[in-house]
Amino acid sequence: MNRQTLIEQIRKKKSFLCVGLDSDISKIPTHLFATEDPVFEFNKAIIDATKDHTVAYKINTAFYEAQGLKGWISMGKTLDYIPKDIFTIADAKRGDIGNTAEQYAKTFFDTYPYDSVTVAPYMGKDSVAPFLQFPNKWAIVLGLTSNEGSKDFQLQPSGDGLLYEKVMQTVAGWGTVDNTMFVVGATRKEQLERVRELIPDHFLLIPGVGTQGGDLATVAKAAMNKDVSILVNVSRAIIFAGSGMDYADLAAKAASEYREQMEQFL
Amino acid sequence: MNRQTLIEQIRKKKSFLCVGLDSDISKIPTHLFATEDPVFEFNKAIIDATKDHTVAYKINTAFYEAQGLKGWISMGKTLDYIPKDIFTIADAKRGDIGNTAEQYAKTFFDTYPYDSVTVAPYMGKDSVAPFLQFPNKWAIVLGLTSNEGSKDFQLQPSGDGLLYEKVMQTVAGWGTVDNTMFVVGATRKEQLERVRELIPDHFLLIPGVGTQGGDLATVAKAAMNKDVSILVNVSRAIIFAGSGMDYADLAAKAASEYREQMEQFL
Repeated sequence: MNRQTLIEQIRKKKSFLCVGLDSDISKIPTHLFATEDPVFEFNKAIIDATKDHTVAYKINTAFYEAQGLKGWISMGKTLDYIPKDIFTIADAKRGDIGNTAEQYAKTFFDTYPYDSVTVAPYMGKDSVAPFLQFPNKWAIVLGLTSNEGSKDFQLQPSGDGLLYEKVMQTVAGWGTVDNTMFVVGATRKEQLERVRELIPDHFLLIPGVGTQGGDLATVAKAAMNKDVSILVNVSRAIIFAGSGMDYADLAAKAASEYREQMEQFL
Repeated sequence: MNRQTLIEQIRKKKSFLCVGLDSDISKIPTHLFATEDPVFEFNKAIIDATKDHTVAYKINTAFYEAQGLKGWISMGKTLDYIPKDIFTIADAKRGDIGNTAEQYAKTFFDTYPYDSVTVAPYMGKDSVAPFLQFPNKWAIVLGLTSNEGSKDFQLQPSGDGLLYEKVMQTVAGWGTVDNTMFVVGATRKEQLERVRELIPDHFLLIPGVGTQGGDLATVAKAAMNKDVSILVNVSRAIIFAGSGMDYADLAAKAASEYREQMEQFL
């Protein structure tokens, strides 16, 4: 999906919500275990329940990989089930060089035809560039994350600034606003404003709202630009809003509430 | 596999060779395509041909992931075929936090029972710690890599030193020499010596010898310690030593030559 289409979808749906399919098999409702593929059945119902409220789905590949072949089957079916006008993200955080990076790009752009994949920057340009060669596909590069460990390296001094600042400025120069986004897990106003000083135009994928405690109003005000250019990811607070037979209804309700809040900022 | 056993295997085989199974399906001999699982048949013959010369196999997961389900099946069969006294590495370079990192640890320590997995450090302690909770399993954390892009961030100033120095010193404090190794792709004498100043005791996984051009004598002299504590990975120069019917014989010959060189330093 290209940038223009994504922005149009955001305007049309009045939503910049991304629903995170972190579909932990140990947390899905027990009645689904009577079906052949419980994780896919869960995702299918969640997608049906949330697709009118969201412009993107982010599949956290770890939860599928941990299940081995069954997990990859569930993931493939889930990806296939997502409506084609909704942006898809393989949250796989791959990062390797040259011909290996090319294989990862093939995995998530071709074998599994996602619109985008999250990528780790530590190994530098030749670990990101192979993801930038595919028309209408995106690398979403880790910039600043919201976890405790972000202080270990990302928030350490590097040259005149901090490492994450150097990473985002440098990576932004390798691609364009049409093929590069950044993961910015920050939910603090000053950090989001700093990110927008550094990269005013790029799309940001922002987790950390919902269960992780970030405030949507702060995020919207500090990080939106004239093209909106943010996707706010919510995972558990939507997909695990309920744990019984009515889990999909409760997911729909939660997603709808997030969307309604978002509409106020659009 | 624990540290003591790995060191014993190195002493016994007089080898610190790791054979990298970067088994690119587009590069394996064409006659294998008459078999049901060409990649596994290739790996099986390579393992038979090289197992007496090597103490570790490194499976570059990207080449398997790109093939989808078939690839994961080939990978599982390959892992299962590796003799139990040989150390196994999932070269997967995963990096995510908390419950997601736990899922990756489950993937590569349990669902696929590798001895170790390569891990990216950018997200900090909570992205590495989940891999350090498994007895006799290892996180092999990216330290300094040998690619062009290593200059983008790893070799940039961070505090009083360079980023890779800070990363290695910091990460070393999170685990022990019994559960943490580092990827050090450096093949330059000064860099290896500097790494050994920073972390004298940890095992290093050193790619970059062979096709990528590093010199084995330099590596051995600068990076070995009293327990040897290095694994030198060679991929293409061994597994693609030949491309015809005799590919396994040529792989055996190449692996044997590397081992003989290594014996001189032990």
